[in-house]
Amino acid sequence: MEAEAAIGVDIGGTSLKFAAVDREGRVLRHWTRPTPAIDPSEGIMRELLAGIDKLLAELKEEAPELRVAGIGIGSAGQIHKRDGSVAFAVDTIPGYTGTPIKARVEERFPELPTFVDNDVNVLALAEKHYGAGRELQDFVCVALGTGIGGAIVQGGRLVHGVYGGAGELGHLSVDFNGPRCSCGNYGCIELYASGTGIERLLKERFENAAKPAWALNAAGLLNAWQSGDALAGEAMDVVLAALGSALAGVVHALNPEAIVLGGGIVEKAPALLAAIEDATRSRTSPVMWKHVRLLPAIAGSRAGVIGAAAQVWQYT
Amino acid sequence: MEAEAAIGVDIGGTSLKFAAVDREGRVLRHWTRPTPAIDPSEGIMRELLAGIDKLLAELKEEAPELRVAGIGIGSAGQIHKRDGSVAFAVDTIPGYTGTPIKARVEERFPELPTFVDNDVNVLALAEKHYGAGRELQDFVCVALGTGIGGAIVQGGRLVHGVYGGAGELGHLSVDFNGPRCSCGNYGCIELYASGTGIERLLKERFENAAKPAWALNAAGLLNAWQSGDALAGEAMDVVLAALGSALAGVVHALNPEAIVLGGGIVEKAPALLAAIEDATRSRTSPVMWKHVRLLPAIAGSRAGVIGAAAQVWQYT
Repeated sequence: MEAEAAIGVDIGGTSLKFAAVDREGRVLRHWTRPTPAIDPSEGIMRELLAGIDKLLAELKEEAPELRVAGIGIGSAGQIHKRDGSVAFAVDTIPGYTGTPIKARVEERFPELPTFVDNDVNVLALAEKHYGAGRELQDFVCVALGTGIGGAIVQGGRLVHGVYGGAGELGHLSVDFNGPRCSCGNYGCIELYASGTGIERLLKERFENAAKPAWALNAAGLLNAWQSGDALAGEAMDVVLAALGSALAGVVHALNPEAIVLGGGIVEKAPALLAAIEDATRSRTSPVMWKHVRLLPAIAGSRAGVIGAAAQVWQYT
Repeated sequence: MEAEAAIGVDIGGTSLKFAAVDREGRVLRHWTRPTPAIDPSEGIMRELLAGIDKLLAELKEEAPELRVAGIGIGSAGQIHKRDGSVAFAVDTIPGYTGTPIKARVEERFPELPTFVDNDVNVLALAEKHYGAGRELQDFVCVALGTGIGGAIVQGGRLVHGVYGGAGELGHLSVDFNGPRCSCGNYGCIELYASGTGIERLLKERFENAAKPAWALNAAGLLNAWQSGDALAGEAMDVVLAALGSALAGVVHALNPEAIVLGGGIVEKAPALLAAIEDATRSRTSPVMWKHVRLLPAIAGSRAGVIGAAAQVWQYT
């Protein structure tokens, strides 16, 4: 069988990651470049095209027998499924909304099929091809990081919705009287169980009390909680109750076989997965719970490029 | 073209509805029977088989030129998509869980393809074939009645999840510190915006105050609200805030083209649709809102049998 590789690129607010990935998800080569700070939208396109060029040239030189099957790109922001442009991006990448990623890449590399999707959607593809989702048809990915991202797979395919914005599970409200979220809703789960949400909770909790040394951020809270600190336990009870309520809602709405949990927060605290499972199980109807599992996501920073490249295997 | 009809049956806690429906969704004949109160699981099966028998005999007699293409059944409870049995039913129909509906019907009518699904899922099929969903690929149905039911259509197909339980949108939590729900979660939207949820809210609100005459149930509240009563307006603000938060979450999670709203509560108060739209819009990010509409469902009690029959056209 012919040796094949796909180009995978992961575009984020701080870096662009490039890799050549084979059909089995093995990274053949990879590197990282910082996201340009000045005129980032045009800068990202310049880095993207130059990076793919460089990767193709190196592969041609060093592995001439390899057939490059296509280009897969995962990007921060919401991506239009129709034309692979940026439908919406928050201010982390100023001016990024509207960038025609797919059109620019296809213009430069017309011989290679190109696919662009949201960064969490491509993480779900990485799970489906190489991770927890290999045997699954219906699952949900939730990434607990600075914010909360999500992706939904049903019948083995990503759920995109009308333009590609589906999967924003961080904006399920768990308190309709809660604080206002940037999305317009109130009490979104992102305000309770993401890195920034946990910081907000800690600030609120210790506003009128002596603040323990650990109570600065999510990492501090998770460490203190894992060490058995009682105050940290109380703060974590709020995080877990909010997250358990949101995930139980997701289970009732989608009846998935699994919720695949990843992101920096989960990777930092291995005990967290079991605690989230308890909080979710106790809020889910038994008949739904019987069919669902909580599973850890593929860890590490390369899941993004591997999932981006997996689009090529998924769609060609 | 040959004249065709499908048998549609709607099994609920109070009645079984039977109809012969043509491909255009026209009801050719129909009748209703009360749900047997004694040994309801076996009684429903007896009524179901006898009712289909009677309908087939009448059609043969009165419209011998008509080809019967199959049988579609919509039922209360959660239905196993694999074998058309009842995966779970609440106590409205005691002993109904486990009833092998599809197997029993196929045993009796082996020549007719038989399809069984949840009652709200078949309402979504009615919308897709004959209602608000005709031009849509990605939409969500929400039925506000005694409880809150839901159904999700993505890419023109019902989302069933792993066994068929998907779409329980009434069990999205909007207050993780709220009252306990029968499903195990806290503060489910069903506790705020269904008939029973509104009764609960009214009871709570007027526990320590003189209760206005209208404040007994959802119909009373909706009438008083539509007449401009100030107290009713305050109570409705809570209902609408909770419902708007839940629906905004659904929009962010699924990026649908439309939310199709139906059920007794919506039919009773035409002004409600616009109020729910306002409450949802103000909680949804503009880029998501731009692509979504709130639409009224097919009204009336025949949507259930029409949707049940539509399974035959959808799947054969």
